Amino acid sequence: MDHKWLEEQREEVGLALARQGIRLAVPVADDGTKGAAAPENSSLASFIDHTLLKPTASQAQIRQLCQEALDYEFASVCVNPVHVPAAAGILAGSAVKVCTVIGFPLGANSTLCKVLEARDAVAAGAEEVDMVMNIGALLEGDYARVYSDIKAVRDGVPGQVLKVILETGYLTKEQIVRGCILAKMAGADFVKTSTGFGPGGATAEDVALMRKVVGADCGVKASGGIRDAETAVAMIKAGANRLGASSGVAIMEGLRGETDY
Amino acid sequence: MDHKWLEEQREEVGLALARQGIRLAVPVADDGTKGAAAPENSSLASFIDHTLLKPTASQAQIRQLCQEALDYEFASVCVNPVHVPAAAGILAGSAVKVCTVIGFPLGANSTLCKVLEARDAVAAGAEEVDMVMNIGALLEGDYARVYSDIKAVRDGVPGQVLKVILETGYLTKEQIVRGCILAKMAGADFVKTSTGFGPGGATAEDVALMRKVVGADCGVKASGGIRDAETAVAMIKAGANRLGASSGVAIMEGLRGETDY
Repeated sequence: MDHKWLEEQREEVGLALARQGIRLAVPVADDGTKGAAAPENSSLASFIDHTLLKPTASQAQIRQLCQEALDYEFASVCVNPVHVPAAAGILAGSAVKVCTVIGFPLGANSTLCKVLEARDAVAAGAEEVDMVMNIGALLEGDYARVYSDIKAVRDGVPGQVLKVILETGYLTKEQIVRGCILAKMAGADFVKTSTGFGPGGATAEDVALMRKVVGADCGVKASGGIRDAETAVAMIKAGANRLGASSGVAIMEGLRGETDY
Repeated sequence: MDHKWLEEQREEVGLALARQGIRLAVPVADDGTKGAAAPENSSLASFIDHTLLKPTASQAQIRQLCQEALDYEFASVCVNPVHVPAAAGILAGSAVKVCTVIGFPLGANSTLCKVLEARDAVAAGAEEVDMVMNIGALLEGDYARVYSDIKAVRDGVPGQVLKVILETGYLTKEQIVRGCILAKMAGADFVKTSTGFGPGGATAEDVALMRKVVGADCGVKASGGIRDAETAVAMIKAGANRLGASSGVAIMEGLRGETDY
């Protein structure tokens, strides 16, 4: 990855935004030498958002997910909004966070809907929200729309951790870089690779690129296709400081999971 | 399909709702001999919701979709909420409706979010809303939750056509029947088979069953896997009076389409 090319991407995003009436400083490029923000002595479990996003998930499965997250000390459980109240009830007082998904998995909801969904989820107990960006707008180069969509959610839930899902499987390297720049500009705490419902999942190459773009002061969450410890560690080495996986238990037990959501 | 078995399903749903504190009359079973509500001389095009729900859809593709809907006189265009304003602008004053999707495609959003998304979409110009039911709650037999989720959206957009997507690929025949009963009780204008993003799509067998359950005074929309005229006609013969397809043009031109959304 060429540093000059990255700088060109930043300049291009800044110019495109300015043409659309948004005049903001694009963050300066990191030198690319810094790794993930997580301390080296963190346990693998502390990287994992323990995930169950199947539309068929039962309340019993959500309870089990929460119990596993407590047992293994995962970072969070990641559940659909409808399950946030139950998860928040179970995990109250513990170190395990409740994470949910917004505008998921297509990202093609109105900005207003994303903001309201995020606020509703936070009111129900969510502490981290993973929103899907406006993918179509990114592909069209409508950067003002991508930015303002994220910024509105950021402003809507100022106190919570905001992760922005790019759905990298649809994107070129250039689009990944530009999506990361826009997410960071809008105040995202993490950029995240995939929903698990789209084409492809996290790759070490994409994660490394995303880390290079956002630098050390923004998180990178790898998700989609992380089903065993080997893959999980590879993602962390590439620069991820959070992993989304429905195979958290399998990963911790040295086994291989079967699904991505 | 046994008429007595259908009556047992209705009774079971009524009893389950009553146990959950909802005491409402379950609609009487149709005799099952009535077909679709659409007049026999309708053109095939008038059955079709011309659909583009890919998260990568561009504004140019949405404009093309609308133009095709005008040219072929489709019932509606079905687009993600983010594209409703553009579609409504293009189709204003025409007979082609703007249809959008709510809680799509997982149905696992909070009820409040579904209501707000529907109202926001209607304010932006949507005339028909296709909501995904709370699939997990249906699978668990939490019929009060399924019913109240639909009823809230129904009350939120009282003047628009409301279609309720069951995602039949996840359901047993019994669950399909019960989902249809609950949707009709809550005031749905249509029950609809599939999102196109889930497992499987419409089958003639499921459509016939759904028609039998909801009777002649509620619509049945078949969607998912309808890519040619032969399949489209088979769905109408089975009892569908609306078809969701991204292959509308192919269907009308005697060709075969390639995707379901």
